[in-house]
Amino acid sequence: MPFLVIGGDAAGMSAASRAKRHRPDLDVIVLEKTADVSYSACGMPYNIADPSRPIDDLVVRRAEVFRDKQGIDLRTGIEATAIDPEGQTVCARDKEGREHTFGYDKLLVATGAVPITPPIPGIDRPGVMVLKSLAHGRAMKDFIDRHAVRKAVIIGMGYIALEMCEALRVRGIAVDMIKPRASFLPWMEEGLADQVRAEVEARGVGVHPGHRIGEIVQQGDRLAVVAPDLTLEGDLVIVAAGIAPASELAAAAGLQTSVAGAIAVDARQRTSNRDIYAAGDCADAFHVVTGQRTWIPLALRANRAGWAVADNVCGIDRRLAGVVGSAVFKVFDLQVARTGINADEARAAGLEPETVVIKSRSRAHAHPGASDIWVAMVGDRGSGRLLGVQMVGRDGVAHRLHAPAVALHAHMTVEQFSLTDLGYAPPFGPTWDPMLTAANQLLKRL
Amino acid sequence: MPFLVIGGDAAGMSAASRAKRHRPDLDVIVLEKTADVSYSACGMPYNIADPSRPIDDLVVRRAEVFRDKQGIDLRTGIEATAIDPEGQTVCARDKEGREHTFGYDKLLVATGAVPITPPIPGIDRPGVMVLKSLAHGRAMKDFIDRHAVRKAVIIGMGYIALEMCEALRVRGIAVDMIKPRASFLPWMEEGLADQVRAEVEARGVGVHPGHRIGEIVQQGDRLAVVAPDLTLEGDLVIVAAGIAPASELAAAAGLQTSVAGAIAVDARQRTSNRDIYAAGDCADAFHVVTGQRTWIPLALRANRAGWAVADNVCGIDRRLAGVVGSAVFKVFDLQVARTGINADEARAAGLEPETVVIKSRSRAHAHPGASDIWVAMVGDRGSGRLLGVQMVGRDGVAHRLHAPAVALHAHMTVEQFSLTDLGYAPPFGPTWDPMLTAANQLLKRL
Repeated sequence: MPFLVIGGDAAGMSAASRAKRHRPDLDVIVLEKTADVSYSACGMPYNIADPSRPIDDLVVRRAEVFRDKQGIDLRTGIEATAIDPEGQTVCARDKEGREHTFGYDKLLVATGAVPITPPIPGIDRPGVMVLKSLAHGRAMKDFIDRHAVRKAVIIGMGYIALEMCEALRVRGIAVDMIKPRASFLPWMEEGLADQVRAEVEARGVGVHPGHRIGEIVQQGDRLAVVAPDLTLEGDLVIVAAGIAPASELAAAAGLQTSVAGAIAVDARQRTSNRDIYAAGDCADAFHVVTGQRTWIPLALRANRAGWAVADNVCGIDRRLAGVVGSAVFKVFDLQVARTGINADEARAAGLEPETVVIKSRSRAHAHPGASDIWVAMVGDRGSGRLLGVQMVGRDGVAHRLHAPAVALHAHMTVEQFSLTDLGYAPPFGPTWDPMLTAANQLLKRL
Repeated sequence: MPFLVIGGDAAGMSAASRAKRHRPDLDVIVLEKTADVSYSACGMPYNIADPSRPIDDLVVRRAEVFRDKQGIDLRTGIEATAIDPEGQTVCARDKEGREHTFGYDKLLVATGAVPITPPIPGIDRPGVMVLKSLAHGRAMKDFIDRHAVRKAVIIGMGYIALEMCEALRVRGIAVDMIKPRASFLPWMEEGLADQVRAEVEARGVGVHPGHRIGEIVQQGDRLAVVAPDLTLEGDLVIVAAGIAPASELAAAAGLQTSVAGAIAVDARQRTSNRDIYAAGDCADAFHVVTGQRTWIPLALRANRAGWAVADNVCGIDRRLAGVVGSAVFKVFDLQVARTGINADEARAAGLEPETVVIKSRSRAHAHPGASDIWVAMVGDRGSGRLLGVQMVGRDGVAHRLHAPAVALHAHMTVEQFSLTDLGYAPPFGPTWDPMLTAANQLLKRL
């Protein structure tokens, strides 16, 4: 009986490939409802920014390679419709509407996530688009070219929204951003969020948080996003209002779900059924800092979880560490990074957070290329533990973040982190790196 | 009785300043033999590279500020000549040759390090220079201008030698480097050291390891560094053959010394005498990875150790973590970084090292600005522990190093490090950061 995988993106194809490497004799079948497998979804905004690059540049490995070189029975254009855990079968439907049934010995559900489309009248109009799959990226890029888009409205202000904002501005397209919630980046310390907002506004982008969207209407050649006190016109409307785990199939089969409806898994990526695993954006994870289940859908975790499933399916006991919630993105020249939890999340987890926000420099005093860098650091008053770090700056922010991420995995206190021996040279930081300065300041308050 | 500090550089002035902040009433006296206090020694090569910047740009805080604003009794141009631990006094001599005696309650020895001058005939000729103090930097910069230096020879190939090599090339000065030992960067994995050497040679620098220097002679207007089979001419000869701890004063007073003759201190920076502390380049430290004493003179440690002394002197019990040996430098466009120990050091410490060297990319597949990055990672076969990491590349190397440095502090295994949740976005790395790829590869061999 085969190892069956539902979903041929990061988690699914990582698992399938690694299982085949471990056991070339294993029958590995992957069911993918679209035509695309193994592409860099995270690279889409950067690809869309560059009209000279075809979208298929983002394909890391083509379906033929998985089939011919790796011996994976990869079936595209076929969508799983039901899982029968008792009978150990999966029903699926191909593009012609034919039904198929696949038996399995072990099953991996790697169905990913779906973009959230808020119930706004007119959200289904042509020219209102989301960005999640490669097909979405292809459609958006085609639309921009075909309609010679000059002006766009983005609904949402998360990191996909901000990356798309940059991509469109790079192409000379005017951008307005709008969302109902009043706070620009609600998870971020205000002093840092202000820097991000200033960077976006400095590029001529209209930033309009706190506007409930009533409808999207056609206005001549253009669309208009209409709020009670604001109407924003555009040739293109991008809905980047977040994503949700694609867990309906798993839930319908009686598998346990948790935070945000994600499929609940243990450290081996096993669901509540011992023969069914889940991995990637549809699965939850344990948060190292809170010890609680969380849902943070990101690419590294998807790949890693896919590998862990392959190991466990092939008899190699593999338990993953939890996540610490590290995320980085770039918006124009600004690097934005976070790891761990913020003060609100800490309070919700029953901790006593104390926060400092410091501003320092990315390189040594008087060294060319030095720029400002802001660090927010959160510690727990009771235990002295480091809980989280946020950083914003133009120089060396994204890679600096790795240090507190590792410290969180190690359950370090703020004092222990403050005493770490970080490399120093003038082109790369002040003697006291901004992260150490933040830790030194925070220590005084704990 | 005062808190007396011998040496007014990083460790000494950090300690003096912090002690005054803790206890404004405390009598703090600093004896500094030169005229310069509190400058960025690490910034000297970058300052020398730029003829438009005065060397005094490197001064972080002037003597008057310490005296007038901070109330520190800072005495420059006075050299400590003997410590009497029994009588708790220090003898010193001023520039006029007058003797002075200072009593102390607590003493900090922060005498720093001295450049090693190999016993080469002719090493005392005018135009043969070292670079350690600001006075050295000033003299070298003046010499380059006054003699319109066109060609230089650097004896040594350590990181100061390489930074000076870059500084001189930036000013259009031709450079040859020479040293007796055959290996270019002996502490570095060969595959990585080769990249550094290639970068230096690509800038037209002559790299000549494995040549024992017989003498330095005057040849017309120029100096010549003469080895049996090679003679290198230059207007300037820089001796960058390493540094040694300036511990004679402490040793003469009977204080215990250790590795390389550095002053032995405990986690509180206290020497073998309970009223005498040592900090900065003259003091040793514990190595977190080996658990043994080590001597790694670097700026961050000096500042941190100075603070710890001030805390302990003022009754705040402060114990420092050991060092993990993190060091970074830049040579032309290449970033070079190390943390922890290499395979030779691991074997010397009784461990069973296993090493991998991998080449990856600094940014995602197909992302603009991506370049090669090399990672060498060392783990212990017995325990699975991570022992050290070296990295070379043009993009994002220096700050990436912070992650394994923190992991070493936490005594992580290679597997634990391989499972850390590092932030990922296409402008900043592949989905699997090069460090994680190295850890994944190393895991297979442990």
